[in-house]
Amino acid sequence: MSANNGMNGSTTTAGLCSPFLKALVQQIRGQDTYGFYRSWSDDLILKPFVVTKHKKREISIEGEVDPVTQARILAFFRAIAARIEQETGLISQVVVELNHEGFGWALVFSGRLLLAMKALRDAHRFGFESLEKLADEGESYVQKGLELVQRFPEVGKL
Amino acid sequence: MSANNGMNGSTTTAGLCSPFLKALVQQIRGQDTYGFYRSWSDDLILKPFVVTKHKKREISIEGEVDPVTQARILAFFRAIAARIEQETGLISQVVVELNHEGFGWALVFSGRLLLAMKALRDAHRFGFESLEKLADEGESYVQKGLELVQRFPEVGKL
Repeated sequence: MSANNGMNGSTTTAGLCSPFLKALVQQIRGQDTYGFYRSWSDDLILKPFVVTKHKKREISIEGEVDPVTQARILAFFRAIAARIEQETGLISQVVVELNHEGFGWALVFSGRLLLAMKALRDAHRFGFESLEKLADEGESYVQKGLELVQRFPEVGKL
Repeated sequence: MSANNGMNGSTTTAGLCSPFLKALVQQIRGQDTYGFYRSWSDDLILKPFVVTKHKKREISIEGEVDPVTQARILAFFRAIAARIEQETGLISQVVVELNHEGFGWALVFSGRLLLAMKALRDAHRFGFESLEKLADEGESYVQKGLELVQRFPEVGKL
């Protein structure tokens, strides 16, 4: 990604063929009550999800996790839930619980089945090396979730 | 329960035959690093879990949930987890997530199986009509969890 922060920053769009990234952009636009992102490109909206190793080292893990970062974690797991819903019709809940030190859990569940789960640590530094990595990791959660729904359909519907 | 708050308040002990209440007391004593509760009877330790309807109405649901109430909710679900572990050997995680308005989720899970779950609302008023009600409700979560482990043993071990 270029460092261009302009409104029309149409940089790499390769990743955006990914159904996961599409779902993620939709999550963010869907929550955008005040039209803050209306004129932003998809790439620009996704940009804060890219946090390189170098940049991670610069982010302090002292104190509470920034609310904007928390919202980003929630959006990531909600996008997973949305993708699984698209494929299976199962409605799921997303719970993100973080303590004051940035440790906690992100959970996506339907019925009694945990479709996705991640133990979070250093949540202050939540992010991915590139848009492609973001797409890959998101999609791999989705695939794992779909596999579970297929193996244990009963549990997901309880 | 009598209103007696004295150290030796040995009121009703009937409920304490309940394996759930025993597990709950153990949770609280186990977290008692400074020996604050050492000289307290079990009944006295459990007393704050009893919140009558009348008392509930007096508790404001404005603002953050009191940390002591949050700890109580956590202890309740940890006791459920402990009881299920006693019976099945499955180690589980407990997650309680509350927003600023006292809404949220309490979840107990093992592997990919949700052993217990409760959508919380007005968490400020968390409590039970009596010790017996507390024991009954806790034990019913435990039984439901055990049933799920029996029906879907694979999912609990994932």
